[in-house]
Amino acid sequence: MPLARIDVAAHTSAETVAAIGDVVYEAMINIANVPEHDRFQIIHRHAKDELVYPSAGYLGLTYTPDIIFIQITWVAGRTVEIKKAFYKAIADAIHTRTGLRKEDIWINLIDVKREDWSFGNGEMQYEPKE
Amino acid sequence: MPLARIDVAAHTSAETVAAIGDVVYEAMINIANVPEHDRFQIIHRHAKDELVYPSAGYLGLTYTPDIIFIQITWVAGRTVEIKKAFYKAIADAIHTRTGLRKEDIWINLIDVKREDWSFGNGEMQYEPKE
Amino acid sequence: MPLARIDVAAHTSAETVAAIGDVVYEAMINIANVPEHDRFQIIHRHAKDELVYPSAGYLGLTYTPDIIFIQITWVAGRTVEIKKAFYKAIADAIHTRTGLRKEDIWINLIDVKREDWSFGNGEMQYEPKE
Repeated sequence: MPLARIDVAAHTSAETVAAIGDVVYEAMINIANVPEHDRFQIIHRHAKDELVYPSAGYLGLTYTPDIIFIQITWVAGRTVEIKKAFYKAIADAIHTRTGLRKEDIWINLIDVKREDWSFGNGEMQYEPKE
Repeated sequence: MPLARIDVAAHTSAETVAAIGDVVYEAMINIANVPEHDRFQIIHRHAKDELVYPSAGYLGLTYTPDIIFIQITWVAGRTVEIKKAFYKAIADAIHTRTGLRKEDIWINLIDVKREDWSFGNGEMQYEPKE
Repeated sequence: MPLARIDVAAHTSAETVAAIGDVVYEAMINIANVPEHDRFQIIHRHAKDELVYPSAGYLGLTYTPDIIFIQITWVAGRTVEIKKAFYKAIADAIHTRTGLRKEDIWINLIDVKREDWSFGNGEMQYEPKE
């Protein structure tokens, strides 16, 4: 169910892009109770002036042109503690596998409802719970 | 009011892209009570590694590189039954008009509020209801 | 915190794109109580058939191929009055600085929660309020 939009600089290697996608999927499975094989991701590659971050940094964090934006839409219900662990797992594993700086891993979540998804065939596969 | 982001493979023909946009708009009008002429759509074309789906399939559905992601932001209030009919209308009509597989039509909805829109001129055209 | 996706035609000049980003950031700071340096924006450039608007116009507004779509995800809590002032500030300032028509400035907001953000380092910088 989650749909992850991952926005990266055009200079990011295909191997790194694939690793980021793997990490996001694995963090969903291992931490956020997402079902196996529920992997839907859209990658956007961008020219240099298309990924904008504050040159002065924000909240003590600094950014580089390698910044990765990850925006995930998923069903509401994950706790604050789960979301915290999810952010940490993604930043740690992207750093370990690709060498990208953890400060450059930027994540935003959008909670929606169970009935807001059709995974194909024109059907609503997740019936809302009573 | 709805904003539809439609993400397709770069190999999708311009005719097919246009037909998908037509279908999404017509399903909004015919089923989801969207006003006439309220058609705002953003198309994103993608390289092969930029549209990611599970190679094993999901929930019994299988996907191909022709997968179409449709993510719609609109005003909350549609019922579960309307959303079901909306999904079905889109998948059926895209299949009929373009030959794309219904399993490759993937849809996600994001509900927002009436005051979350400016259609131009710097105005909030939809006043919130009391 | 806000993430602004700004979708523009490929023919838009780099100077205009930069000015739009400046305006959106300044309206956040001046009107919507966004902290200084909290500037995160993703620009998408599009071919002619990728930005779709009603040729008949909508609600008395008309559009041209210069249309700019601005979709902002941010923390819920801004009032209707703030949102109104925010739309006006953006359309007015983009018009003044770039000459773009105010009718071509299209804005949508998505409200999410404080815990839905990681600005880097795998941390949840905004703890939810009790």
